[in-house]
Amino acid sequence: MKVLVIHGPNLDKLGQREIDVYGKLTLDEINKALEKLGKELGLQVDCFQLAGEGEIVSKIGAAASEYKAVVINPAAYTHYSVAIRDAVAGCQVPVVEVHLSNIYSREEFRHKSVIAPVAKGQISGFGLDSYLLGLRAAVALVK
Amino acid sequence: MKVLVIHGPNLDKLGQREIDVYGKLTLDEINKALEKLGKELGLQVDCFQLAGEGEIVSKIGAAASEYKAVVINPAAYTHYSVAIRDAVAGCQVPVVEVHLSNIYSREEFRHKSVIAPVAKGQISGFGLDSYLLGLRAAVALVK
Amino acid sequence: MKVLVIHGPNLDKLGQREIDVYGKLTLDEINKALEKLGKELGLQVDCFQLAGEGEIVSKIGAAASEYKAVVINPAAYTHYSVAIRDAVAGCQVPVVEVHLSNIYSREEFRHKSVIAPVAKGQISGFGLDSYLLGLRAAVALVK
Amino acid sequence: MKVLVIHGPNLDKLGQREIDVYGKLTLDEINKALEKLGKELGLQVDCFQLAGEGEIVSKIGAAASEYKAVVINPAAYTHYSVAIRDAVAGCQVPVVEVHLSNIYSREEFRHKSVIAPVAKGQISGFGLDSYLLGLRAAVALVK
Amino acid sequence: MKVLVIHGPNLDKLGQREIDVYGKLTLDEINKALEKLGKELGLQVDCFQLAGEGEIVSKIGAAASEYKAVVINPAAYTHYSVAIRDAVAGCQVPVVEVHLSNIYSREEFRHKSVIAPVAKGQISGFGLDSYLLGLRAAVALVK
Amino acid sequence: MKVLVIHGPNLDKLGQREIDVYGKLTLDEINKALEKLGKELGLQVDCFQLAGEGEIVSKIGAAASEYKAVVINPAAYTHYSVAIRDAVAGCQVPVVEVHLSNIYSREEFRHKSVIAPVAKGQISGFGLDSYLLGLRAAVALVK
Amino acid sequence: MKVLVIHGPNLDKLGQREIDVYGKLTLDEINKALEKLGKELGLQVDCFQLAGEGEIVSKIGAAASEYKAVVINPAAYTHYSVAIRDAVAGCQVPVVEVHLSNIYSREEFRHKSVIAPVAKGQISGFGLDSYLLGLRAAVALVK
Amino acid sequence: MKVLVIHGPNLDKLGQREIDVYGKLTLDEINKALEKLGKELGLQVDCFQLAGEGEIVSKIGAAASEYKAVVINPAAYTHYSVAIRDAVAGCQVPVVEVHLSNIYSREEFRHKSVIAPVAKGQISGFGLDSYLLGLRAAVALVK
Amino acid sequence: MKVLVIHGPNLDKLGQREIDVYGKLTLDEINKALEKLGKELGLQVDCFQLAGEGEIVSKIGAAASEYKAVVINPAAYTHYSVAIRDAVAGCQVPVVEVHLSNIYSREEFRHKSVIAPVAKGQISGFGLDSYLLGLRAAVALVK
Amino acid sequence: MKVLVIHGPNLDKLGQREIDVYGKLTLDEINKALEKLGKELGLQVDCFQLAGEGEIVSKIGAAASEYKAVVINPAAYTHYSVAIRDAVAGCQVPVVEVHLSNIYSREEFRHKSVIAPVAKGQISGFGLDSYLLGLRAAVALVK
Amino acid sequence: MKVLVIHGPNLDKLGQREIDVYGKLTLDEINKALEKLGKELGLQVDCFQLAGEGEIVSKIGAAASEYKAVVINPAAYTHYSVAIRDAVAGCQVPVVEVHLSNIYSREEFRHKSVIAPVAKGQISGFGLDSYLLGLRAAVALVK
Amino acid sequence: MKVLVIHGPNLDKLGQREIDVYGKLTLDEINKALEKLGKELGLQVDCFQLAGEGEIVSKIGAAASEYKAVVINPAAYTHYSVAIRDAVAGCQVPVVEVHLSNIYSREEFRHKSVIAPVAKGQISGFGLDSYLLGLRAAVALVK
Repeated sequence: MKVLVIHGPNLDKLGQREIDVYGKLTLDEINKALEKLGKELGLQVDCFQLAGEGEIVSKIGAAASEYKAVVINPAAYTHYSVAIRDAVAGCQVPVVEVHLSNIYSREEFRHKSVIAPVAKGQISGFGLDSYLLGLRAAVALVK
Repeated sequence: MKVLVIHGPNLDKLGQREIDVYGKLTLDEINKALEKLGKELGLQVDCFQLAGEGEIVSKIGAAASEYKAVVINPAAYTHYSVAIRDAVAGCQVPVVEVHLSNIYSREEFRHKSVIAPVAKGQISGFGLDSYLLGLRAAVALVK
Repeated sequence: MKVLVIHGPNLDKLGQREIDVYGKLTLDEINKALEKLGKELGLQVDCFQLAGEGEIVSKIGAAASEYKAVVINPAAYTHYSVAIRDAVAGCQVPVVEVHLSNIYSREEFRHKSVIAPVAKGQISGFGLDSYLLGLRAAVALVK
Repeated sequence: MKVLVIHGPNLDKLGQREIDVYGKLTLDEINKALEKLGKELGLQVDCFQLAGEGEIVSKIGAAASEYKAVVINPAAYTHYSVAIRDAVAGCQVPVVEVHLSNIYSREEFRHKSVIAPVAKGQISGFGLDSYLLGLRAAVALVK
Repeated sequence: MKVLVIHGPNLDKLGQREIDVYGKLTLDEINKALEKLGKELGLQVDCFQLAGEGEIVSKIGAAASEYKAVVINPAAYTHYSVAIRDAVAGCQVPVVEVHLSNIYSREEFRHKSVIAPVAKGQISGFGLDSYLLGLRAAVALVK
Repeated sequence: MKVLVIHGPNLDKLGQREIDVYGKLTLDEINKALEKLGKELGLQVDCFQLAGEGEIVSKIGAAASEYKAVVINPAAYTHYSVAIRDAVAGCQVPVVEVHLSNIYSREEFRHKSVIAPVAKGQISGFGLDSYLLGLRAAVALVK
Repeated sequence: MKVLVIHGPNLDKLGQREIDVYGKLTLDEINKALEKLGKELGLQVDCFQLAGEGEIVSKIGAAASEYKAVVINPAAYTHYSVAIRDAVAGCQVPVVEVHLSNIYSREEFRHKSVIAPVAKGQISGFGLDSYLLGLRAAVALVK
Repeated sequence: MKVLVIHGPNLDKLGQREIDVYGKLTLDEINKALEKLGKELGLQVDCFQLAGEGEIVSKIGAAASEYKAVVINPAAYTHYSVAIRDAVAGCQVPVVEVHLSNIYSREEFRHKSVIAPVAKGQISGFGLDSYLLGLRAAVALVK
Repeated sequence: MKVLVIHGPNLDKLGQREIDVYGKLTLDEINKALEKLGKELGLQVDCFQLAGEGEIVSKIGAAASEYKAVVINPAAYTHYSVAIRDAVAGCQVPVVEVHLSNIYSREEFRHKSVIAPVAKGQISGFGLDSYLLGLRAAVALVK
Repeated sequence: MKVLVIHGPNLDKLGQREIDVYGKLTLDEINKALEKLGKELGLQVDCFQLAGEGEIVSKIGAAASEYKAVVINPAAYTHYSVAIRDAVAGCQVPVVEVHLSNIYSREEFRHKSVIAPVAKGQISGFGLDSYLLGLRAAVALVK
Repeated sequence: MKVLVIHGPNLDKLGQREIDVYGKLTLDEINKALEKLGKELGLQVDCFQLAGEGEIVSKIGAAASEYKAVVINPAAYTHYSVAIRDAVAGCQVPVVEVHLSNIYSREEFRHKSVIAPVAKGQISGFGLDSYLLGLRAAVALVK
Repeated sequence: MKVLVIHGPNLDKLGQREIDVYGKLTLDEINKALEKLGKELGLQVDCFQLAGEGEIVSKIGAAASEYKAVVINPAAYTHYSVAIRDAVAGCQVPVVEVHLSNIYSREEFRHKSVIAPVAKGQISGFGLDSYLLGLRAAVALVK
């Protein structure tokens, strides 16, 4: 069983920017931790960081042919990308939305996710653990 | 006379996803029907499906040099892409906005088109016929 | 096959008032063009201009017994007449909403149609052609 | 003692349209049930179905000279007719507002009645019984 | 020179209803005072009270062929009748909007006039004098 | 057949406080009138006044095992208690919402009931008769 | 009998600025026309142009000791000066609000007057005639 | 190490009410699954279902003296209980918010959690797994 | 003369939680300071801390039989408890609302008190002194 | 120790205007009562009534060089004067905001104070006692 | 060529108040830097700090007779002074709006400038350099 | 020292489209003027025009390794691209936002920049000079 993990725009800069919000954790460390947990759970985890809205739409559109589930941190696109929302809604495998920070304790405009209503569920605020819990949630959904 | 038809993000999945909303019609069938009507009306119809906002902006930006009119289904971008709006506003040939479903009977956020104010007109709710009527409208505008 | 066309309040003044918005086209010219296209399509088209909200409600209420489809330009009532909305929602034949001008490029309050969510579809912004395309749409819906 | 019952626009179509919302009950059945209960309570009940806002205004304006109370289902006008509101506010006999369906479990725009603030009271959601309870309420108000 | 005066819905009840808001003045007294001032100013003043929105639309639509100006108290329709607004906007002679009471010291929903933006001007709050000043304003506009 | 009547917070003070809004009627008089009408209709009516939101939630949660219907005046909780709303939505017997005063002619914040959308229906504005009509409505719903 | 006329900020620039909105009329011409009409009506009219909010508050505060009525064009302060509103509300002689332009056909923020609810009435849109009608209104109020 | 789990109002009815939203899962089954996972993770898990807002406030207020973390499903109180929010904000051990259903795909008013901004994080939409993931998140937070 | 002081939910945690907002002051210290000032002013001051909304409603409901005035810090309930508002409105002795912190310099949702409109007055932002000033205000109101 | 008291616009009219809101108390009586309490507390109290926003800004700007605290009733400016807000925010001595009437039981627009977020605290609704309590609060803040 | 520079209310306190927002820069240093750059550019720069709204209106009203351009930092008035807006709109020479701090990263109410729509342009966030760039912009506009 | 200049979507069409808004200036002319000023200031200026949101995010993400400052005209993305906002917020060198037109005198939706709160400052409305002043601002920020 394979799971697709998508990291949205700017997440390649983790550990370098806005350290007061996101801490020193790097994207590479997240990916390694996901792969490690994936192994424990008997999964192959493929991780992609994509800055373009259209690229994310296409990646989700192609996911069902190869993956059993998708874990996505849509980052900034969370709050306005109806295109990604529609891709998630049309995706034939379950999609789990995750956020490193607690989006509800940040700026007002980050409180609303346009993707959440069509994702299976959402996990927010646990840093690296948001991803790991998201991977477990994805596994639970496809079992 | 040539007319450009642009299909926005996720429309490549027509017939596979959200069949309760969009039916089983595929994008290929739409394109064939457009070409057929084009022939009847003496037009060449070129159809493109593009997931990226920037790609659509560029396609519209280049349209006037080759086409006499544009028919566009901006899909999800309808509701927030000011970039596409500005491209449409600056396009030197008429642009017709079409939607397969009746966007006014769906979620609240789909009731607003940021593109409609600068398109010549809008046709919504008639499925495949939205495109065919849109092509006729485009022809009427350039006559 | 017969199709009913309803013109809402003030449309009898077309060609005399607000020529910068609506042009010099008269209601009589619209009706003649509709009848002409109707003939081409093998339809009888009956056109009525009605100023009263209650009259329009009654006309729609009685439509199904005589007509196969309705094309309506609700004019000012577009934006607040829940009575006409309810009549359209309860109408047993398909109803197509049309507008001469692009209502989305006019005053803010004209951007919202309370009728659109219950009409089959909406065509806006093509002048006389809005009606002609609306008639074609109606025919496509009842085919 | 005479009581006036006014049915607003489209209610003549009860039993024919939107049966999922209103059921198969017809306006004639409502009127007969009202007359029957009227007899039990020693009242004459006069029922009118009116599609026009102005007609309803006039009917209410003339009510006090002949009736001791008014029961009104303003239907679609509930949500915007300030003209009927003003007629109700100026009516010298008590007015009871009734609704067949529970307007608070329908579309957002149906949650607001512009008439309720000036009616004596409102009864909503009990189908035919909304009218019968409304008649009892009217009697209680004029006792 | 002839001036048309239109009284909207419920104004026939003046002096009988809501006396705390409108006082004991009757519509007949208003009409007489208008005629008297009309004579002083060398005008013929024709007054109509109309309950129906469609009737008012038609009356305004026909005004220019017979009258040099219109004075209108749209009453309840002030706050939502886009149909009357469009009739006023399309009227080829100047239209003056008047109100007996100060609409800005009443309920919130009465603070907004949809007609004011297209009338020449508005006079509100002076009781009978609102009409008399409105007549003078109309004369000044057509001089 | 048994019917449960729940009076929300502060209703124990009826007849002592805010007499201009609620009159001199006491809760005891309401309960007696309900019992009397209950007898006429062949019902046992049990009345409870509860100040605590959680207590009301629990009372409704336990209602179906003993009662055939519930009549509730949620008082202040009407306007914000999603907990009571959820209890009503999950209640296996019909729930009727009643109000002594006309909540739509009071402060703006009292115009919205969060409970109405999930109650069977609502009766507002008839004083003691709101309860009596509510009891009749409950009986009609379970017949 | 003396009447006070107050012109708010920037009105000293009439005839020099924004001629498309206000025309070529100067403040001096307005004052002369007011004095002339004053004479006809047997009044002394004193006119002041004041740029400072506090100065206008003080002028209104002192008005009742010398004047029988006040005519004020609050200009920009119309839309936010609660201080002037409070001065008008506390003024022991009637205050009439006037505007040269139709404030309801200008920018959205000019549609709201915070002063209108406490003035006796408002006259808007008739240019110089707004002042002259305002003077007549003031006289009618103190008669 | 001990973890406190709080279930808000109406959750005792799980499996009996609104089965289309919550499924047939009972509260007892959730508690058993939590205890089982707790054992695997070396934790003691104490579960309480509380209907009263004040009771939940008190339970959280006392939590830090006995527990290392709190997992709470505030149910209906999620959307308005500032009292519980303040208790969570003042709690000296981490609090994790969980929801059985995806609150973002339900009614608009359920999209906002007043508690989320002060919880460590939120997990929503995974049914029983929301609780199990929440327990894991709590453990991760206190490690 | 006796005065009742009510402390709302979470105030028992003063000095332990959110010390940056509330400081190290404990509830016990507040109560002692109130009793001391009470003695100086010749009053008996009874203080209660209550977490439950219903309990506070009941306490206020019973206040008039024993106390001459009430000082209340509704804490979190300030912002939504219409039940407490109604209890305050119905209380036959004056009620003074106090807050330790300046609620207008905190989160947006804390700027609105639903209780303030029916309390005699409000004192906010002076820490312990808010209570002491509140006690003086209560005395002044009943003198 | 000296304390500055500032009375905003129109407060010089106390006792003459809007007696139903403010009573017969005059500004002179307030100033005398403040001086008397000042003496008891060992303070010199200087009182100024200022109509101009700029004058109040300047007075506050100069306050710190002479006074230890400021008590201000900003009157109408409370609701919109960001200039006074900025002056208060930049004032190096504590500023206490007071209101004679309960601003939360008056018109909606008076519920918001733009000054409160930057004042130390606010006292509202106790008439003359609002000032006296404000003086005590100021003393407590600088002790 | 002469350029007028206007500093709004409270800017005389620069360097003394809110140093975390504005730094230690004084108004005198700004004026000196402006004069120095003015000399380099061949301009005479006249600087005024004014606290009163009316004074600023008058200064702008008189500007065109003496100056070729205006640079204004309206400070607090930025957000509500329609009077200054109207003065700017009517000013016959170009007006440049400048702000020391980035008004878009401060409180929500500071994000809106009522003056910006009628100024030629706006420069915000560069401290002293906002003024210097504003002077350069003014020169560019009048070249 | 090198400075990066980014032109957002559609700016390649400058001089060809919407000439009433943007004039005849071309992007090439802007770039040349920037290079010329760069030389005067001793800078290398690199200019890029990018239509894709993701491309702009990536360009900003890579900027700090090569450039000392960024000048960006985000064009349409100004109003909704949280992705670009996050890139700007995370950029380790200062970013200056510029606009050719005065965005505050255009459509309502263009008044809000989601990027401004995290840019160092904003310059709007001076045409070509907006860029030149932006370059100077950038230099001043890194000095």
